[in-house]
Amino acid sequence: MGQDQSSVFDLAAAAAASNGGNNDPLLPPARFIGAPQKPSAMPYHKYVAYDKQVPFDYPQRTWPDRRLARAPRWCSVDLRDGNQALVNPMDSERKLRFWNMLVEMGFKEIEVGFPSASETDYDFIRMLIERELIPDDVTIVVLTQAREHLIRKTYECLKGCKRAIVHFYNSVSVLQREVVFRKDREGIKQLATDAAKLCKELEGDAEGIDMYYEYSPESFTGTEPDYAVEVCNAVIDVIRPTVDHPMIINLPATVEMTTPNVFADQVEYVSDNLQDRDAVVLSLHPHNDEGMGVAAAELGMLAGADRIEGCLLGNGERTGNVDLVTIGLNLLTQGIDPQLDLSDMPTIRRTVEYCNQLKVSERHPYAGNFVFTAFSGSHQDAIKKGLEAREVAADMQGVKLEDFVWLVPYLPIDPKDIGRSYEAIIRVNSQSGKGGMAYLLKTNHNLDLPKKLQVEFEHVVQQHADATKKEVKDEDIWRLFKDEYLPVGESGATDAGAAASDHPDESLDQWGRLKLLKVSMSSGEDGSDTQLTATVLDRGINVGAEPEVTRHIEGRGNGPIDAFLNAVKSFGVEATVLDYAEHTMPVGSDAKAASYVQCEVGMEDEEKRMVWGVGIDSSTITSSLKAIISAVNRSAR
Amino acid sequence: MGQDQSSVFDLAAAAAASNGGNNDPLLPPARFIGAPQKPSAMPYHKYVAYDKQVPFDYPQRTWPDRRLARAPRWCSVDLRDGNQALVNPMDSERKLRFWNMLVEMGFKEIEVGFPSASETDYDFIRMLIERELIPDDVTIVVLTQAREHLIRKTYECLKGCKRAIVHFYNSVSVLQREVVFRKDREGIKQLATDAAKLCKELEGDAEGIDMYYEYSPESFTGTEPDYAVEVCNAVIDVIRPTVDHPMIINLPATVEMTTPNVFADQVEYVSDNLQDRDAVVLSLHPHNDEGMGVAAAELGMLAGADRIEGCLLGNGERTGNVDLVTIGLNLLTQGIDPQLDLSDMPTIRRTVEYCNQLKVSERHPYAGNFVFTAFSGSHQDAIKKGLEAREVAADMQGVKLEDFVWLVPYLPIDPKDIGRSYEAIIRVNSQSGKGGMAYLLKTNHNLDLPKKLQVEFEHVVQQHADATKKEVKDEDIWRLFKDEYLPVGESGATDAGAAASDHPDESLDQWGRLKLLKVSMSSGEDGSDTQLTATVLDRGINVGAEPEVTRHIEGRGNGPIDAFLNAVKSFGVEATVLDYAEHTMPVGSDAKAASYVQCEVGMEDEEKRMVWGVGIDSSTITSSLKAIISAVNRSAR
Repeated sequence: MGQDQSSVFDLAAAAAASNGGNNDPLLPPARFIGAPQKPSAMPYHKYVAYDKQVPFDYPQRTWPDRRLARAPRWCSVDLRDGNQALVNPMDSERKLRFWNMLVEMGFKEIEVGFPSASETDYDFIRMLIERELIPDDVTIVVLTQAREHLIRKTYECLKGCKRAIVHFYNSVSVLQREVVFRKDREGIKQLATDAAKLCKELEGDAEGIDMYYEYSPESFTGTEPDYAVEVCNAVIDVIRPTVDHPMIINLPATVEMTTPNVFADQVEYVSDNLQDRDAVVLSLHPHNDEGMGVAAAELGMLAGADRIEGCLLGNGERTGNVDLVTIGLNLLTQGIDPQLDLSDMPTIRRTVEYCNQLKVSERHPYAGNFVFTAFSGSHQDAIKKGLEAREVAADMQGVKLEDFVWLVPYLPIDPKDIGRSYEAIIRVNSQSGKGGMAYLLKTNHNLDLPKKLQVEFEHVVQQHADATKKEVKDEDIWRLFKDEYLPVGESGATDAGAAASDHPDESLDQWGRLKLLKVSMSSGEDGSDTQLTATVLDRGINVGAEPEVTRHIEGRGNGPIDAFLNAVKSFGVEATVLDYAEHTMPVGSDAKAASYVQCEVGMEDEEKRMVWGVGIDSSTITSSLKAIISAVNRSAR
Repeated sequence: MGQDQSSVFDLAAAAAASNGGNNDPLLPPARFIGAPQKPSAMPYHKYVAYDKQVPFDYPQRTWPDRRLARAPRWCSVDLRDGNQALVNPMDSERKLRFWNMLVEMGFKEIEVGFPSASETDYDFIRMLIERELIPDDVTIVVLTQAREHLIRKTYECLKGCKRAIVHFYNSVSVLQREVVFRKDREGIKQLATDAAKLCKELEGDAEGIDMYYEYSPESFTGTEPDYAVEVCNAVIDVIRPTVDHPMIINLPATVEMTTPNVFADQVEYVSDNLQDRDAVVLSLHPHNDEGMGVAAAELGMLAGADRIEGCLLGNGERTGNVDLVTIGLNLLTQGIDPQLDLSDMPTIRRTVEYCNQLKVSERHPYAGNFVFTAFSGSHQDAIKKGLEAREVAADMQGVKLEDFVWLVPYLPIDPKDIGRSYEAIIRVNSQSGKGGMAYLLKTNHNLDLPKKLQVEFEHVVQQHADATKKEVKDEDIWRLFKDEYLPVGESGATDAGAAASDHPDESLDQWGRLKLLKVSMSSGEDGSDTQLTATVLDRGINVGAEPEVTRHIEGRGNGPIDAFLNAVKSFGVEATVLDYAEHTMPVGSDAKAASYVQCEVGMEDEEKRMVWGVGIDSSTITSSLKAIISAVNRSAR
């Protein structure tokens, strides 16, 4: 830009000075409750709204009416853009490991480096070529600035390669034209066309290479769209791509500067105005400075982009390139084949973390440790019900569960489809309700607690969580449950392991007064006159303070439970059953029954308490009697 | 949903079975280079496209033509949604610390908990009320499910509060209606209106509290928009908000299920169809399952939302709530006052990490360690030029630099505006070019290297980087520079510290043959006949192997440099100067000069080499002579 024209700073300063901020009288009044927000001291007058920097509107846009329909052409730039943004760029061992994973995942285009700028890149590309590590259906891309000596070195590096894409770029933004290159629009365009001409010239020497081109008007987001199109069309004019031998025009959101709908408008405008559009693969290269890179890519695909460049899990300069894994799995959730193998997320993540030497965040979509985890009680409850309903529906349709349509509240994807387990889904902390505990007891311990028992047990867990202020792990829940409801050592339910033995005394003390040792029974034809004899160990009302006595008790009644309730009266205990549930516990051939009883219990003349008891036994009858003992013991605590 | 209606699973399974994937014959052919992508084994037939789950279109949308104009009403849900998603929820010390920061940042609405579900929350809210910790202009929000006993407990918790918002919700999605609540549309709507009626009823008892309401049709993104509007309007009918006493309708993207433009369409539709719209604050609560939460919020604001709920740096269930810090700073980059104090990012990040016990990713927008870091050489070069051009422009306009419009390539925001330094901007690794080193030498060591010297020194750094495969830190660059160009201990430039003394011998050995000890000079009126005498220590051509000799040399010439070049001929050295630059080094009162000379140097009868030399001295003459010595010594290495 010549000295006679206004500087970009003058224009910007004038625009910024007119920033209305929140005081624009044209805005309708803000709606709020209580007091209004106050102006901050943030220096918003230093910044220029994007539409004042790059005035552009495209009201004829059609992309908002479209929906995603297929995977884009993927190009991984992990080994180039990702690699250059690392504190410690990959050594060749790491690069090769990353390369191998990308090939296995199904990438057909991989940008492998900037060979004219880095010896390491140059050597790595030579190794790929000389050791014949590039499969026939994979095309490598090499980046170079649009400068003669760099382009020459790039071609030198490609010798012996079967097929390659030379990716040349120059920055075309308003700002960089002025402050970096000090050239006007024509001068900048000529940088691009000169580079294109040199490429075509060198192509003659590049014997045996099926050579393709990619051109990036770098800093596209800071460029007038009509000028970007002008430069791209001038490059297309030189390269002369055909439908059978296309070229790539790649629009980099080098810096993300505004909302993704504006980017999509620009993409649609470029797509509508590129010449030889059929011979051009229109590509996007979004960064994530405003945290909207994935949205920019997806809306850009709606707007006509054929191809997306990015990195696995979003590595790259500053905030990173767009995350291709997230886009791929977003497509999967829409019933679209991503054409990438994303089925082993743990390995993808581990490899990316190893190669980049950067940790993936706990909340990173699809890959983070917590993204399938529900801590909230109502979420846990809904997930539990949703998984159950899906099982029933699959059964009714006669479809194998793993192939059945995935609809589960709060889980947009089946964790198993990306190699993750259900284990982490339900985690319980002091903020969780009963749903999570119930889910864990069912999934890990085969106990399907009646709802009212869940409510009772929730208080036990809640007290523990409020006291410790910590996550309540599955083993904690299991220990709390056993301490509360089951006699130690006879639970029979799947044991979570060491947890129980950590607290043997506590559990024993808490178990309480009575323990069922033996039971026998006889009844008439319909069980209405059941006679029951039981041997019960009685530790006394003050357990530990009194001598233990083994007693034989007898009772008659309308079925074994009724008979047993009558029998325990000999301990001075009055109990009636209010609610009862029982289910089998399908643990291999060693099937057991779990019984749950809600009783009203008390000593004679005392006020009665409503408590639940739980019993587990291979006999359904014994399990129900144990449940009564459990309730009786708990009522006395 | 009754048994007579089709199950959501039947409909979904039918829709999923019709997924065309990438084989849809209606799609135009995919454009690519080389080989096509292959179908993956990912089970896309299990998933249903969003527009088949929730059919909806809104072609009359106007939001794509709008641009952001002001900050939304902010509501932090860190102490509720964020807190409930932590492995270890905050204790009261952490909660209070977070609360205090939110108040200081300027939040006027803060959701403080779910008091009917958690004792910790209940106690915390009581503490805020009883200790009078809620400023008059801040309104607390408390969450409750739309269930009677929970609502009652919520009101109990609010006793003595001056103003509060009771936020009640129930899930209204197609899926949850069927699998969780087993109710039809009317039944689910009644849950909401019953809750609203109970709230109004209890309000009578809530003496002295200025009571407001927020209603969330939870799982809004899984709900038919017309039904969501029907439920919201039914609630509005019960609550009867007014312009002066509005209520909040909050649309949760409980799970992010598709691209944010579809969400924006839905928001605009709701905004257009809510009754008493002027009496309603329309709020959004986006999550980030597909990595597009920020975009959903910002496009939703274009579509008519008044208020955004989210967390600082994106904490919350699964992938997190939308990140309010990113939205706020995105607004700042558009010249809009965020009405939040985001000027001390290091403290915000530290506090969030402490309270949540979760690390913020290195690439998190605005807050991550690397987001202002440019490793790429061309980026570094452009940043350096951009910062210089901005300085010049500010100077020309007579504006203080810190107030001047911010336009710098690759840096969408001035790091200083959010309490971060420029230190991290330029980091050099084996992928970097000369721009970064040049920037570091200028910024940290006051040396402004001529461009051709940058090119020469780049090779030195590149070799080091390729050999070590590590980031080249500022101290490494400074050590390499001194080893290469300066005699140890006399550099006089700002010393980066310990680095030099780590390698004293190496540096000394490398310094080379000659060392200037003393110089004197006389000249005629115009310096054309300069006579120069110098005392020079000569360590011999094979440094260390020959005895050191101190020699006095003399020369005459056209100025001191010419005279000195003639004088060094007595060592058998032939040298001519090709390029020369000098600048002062403004380090306090102890100002020095830095000289750079490019010489063609060689011993008599040898081939000559082009090398740069650097000299630093308080005398501009001595610094230039030292630069010649530097070049002579380097040529002999």
